Amino acid sequence: MKSIDVCLTPDLMPLYKVQDRTIVVVDILRATSCMTTAIAFGVHSITPFAKLEDCLAMKAMDYFTAGERDGKKVDGFDLGNSPFEYMHESLRGGKIAFTTTNGTQAIARSVGADEIIIGSFLNLSAVSNHLRQIQNNILIVCAGWKGKFNLEDTLFAGALVEMMKDQFEPECDAPLAALQLYQCAKTDMHAFLQNSSHVKRLARLNVVEDVKFCLTLDKYDVVPVMREGEIKKL
Amino acid sequence: MKSIDVCLTPDLMPLYKVQDRTIVVVDILRATSCMTTAIAFGVHSITPFAKLEDCLAMKAMDYFTAGERDGKKVDGFDLGNSPFEYMHESLRGGKIAFTTTNGTQAIARSVGADEIIIGSFLNLSAVSNHLRQIQNNILIVCAGWKGKFNLEDTLFAGALVEMMKDQFEPECDAPLAALQLYQCAKTDMHAFLQNSSHVKRLARLNVVEDVKFCLTLDKYDVVPVMREGEIKKL
Repeated sequence: MKSIDVCLTPDLMPLYKVQDRTIVVVDILRATSCMTTAIAFGVHSITPFAKLEDCLAMKAMDYFTAGERDGKKVDGFDLGNSPFEYMHESLRGGKIAFTTTNGTQAIARSVGADEIIIGSFLNLSAVSNHLRQIQNNILIVCAGWKGKFNLEDTLFAGALVEMMKDQFEPECDAPLAALQLYQCAKTDMHAFLQNSSHVKRLARLNVVEDVKFCLTLDKYDVVPVMREGEIKKL
Repeated sequence: MKSIDVCLTPDLMPLYKVQDRTIVVVDILRATSCMTTAIAFGVHSITPFAKLEDCLAMKAMDYFTAGERDGKKVDGFDLGNSPFEYMHESLRGGKIAFTTTNGTQAIARSVGADEIIIGSFLNLSAVSNHLRQIQNNILIVCAGWKGKFNLEDTLFAGALVEMMKDQFEPECDAPLAALQLYQCAKTDMHAFLQNSSHVKRLARLNVVEDVKFCLTLDKYDVVPVMREGEIKKL
């Protein structure tokens, strides 16, 4: 039986082997939800950058630039970290250079994997359908918050473990905990997350609609995949 | 209101401030359960060592030596990692040099805290009574398994968060997750942990009775505390 594992924060990535694995990177609030939305709306590619200045420099190459730190759009960038910004017709066929507090860092730590795909609740079933067709073991990498564990990414991991459990065996305790937490939360994830640190943080920033949207299941039937440094539709 | 936080594995300790905190170190299976038992049975002190050879060298200083790696007692040591070994009359008043796969590493990473105490289900209420009397914020440090998250230490963290929640506010998502998991598990922790990686590992080593014992609540009314490198009864 193939195995499924969960890395609860990018800071634990040195403990995991990435070779020969398919990695699913998740940053529910909101990087991978934005990426999924952008790819669903016809963006040509998304190039993740760890550093703000490297990302902003891509403006000169006719990229749209997306920059977020601490939940807020950074001055000088075209786009922030709200999925609603990625639904515009003007982005269709365009290239986006993207940097966020946690999500792009999680992607950077996943380099070396056989395959890196972008997961969110918005494309949960599309991701799970893809994973059923591959031979690799799976590692879900939660973006967390500045290296620490967060609830919303762990819930996504639990949802995916639940969907895959007939074919993939949990490798250690992290997927078991994620599954248990998801089973507690799934009837009303929004209510479950009301006390979570990032939902509170975003409520202060008035992005309550973003949170609701990012917790919507299976809005888009796309699997964004990273190849040669660019995220594109599979 | 004072705060309570949970560090899910020692590998995440660089993200946490330890100064001015009381740290509760937990390694349910089985280091901190053994330490609690030993102190309850009248051992004078326990000195934790990260390295096997440093620990073994203490034999020359009339210490009992306790050494465990990968769940098994190490050749040449007097004691292993079963709490039942620490109930012998011969240990009363003695000094123990102690090294384990995870527990002593978690203690080493906690150095610098205002206070370090040893927690287990065996002394849960004693620990919580002590914490009610102090002014510090609390950080629970889970020993995990070789840097990774584990369920049993997280359940202990959740139990302590539950007991303290009238006086201490969860600082981020880790204590919320631990609390939720404990609430799922508490009616039958043994059953809940049957699929956990370490309980399976120990079952293979035939230490099923150890696991049952380590999940017993409030067997001992002692608070082992670390001072100047030694763990003693408070």
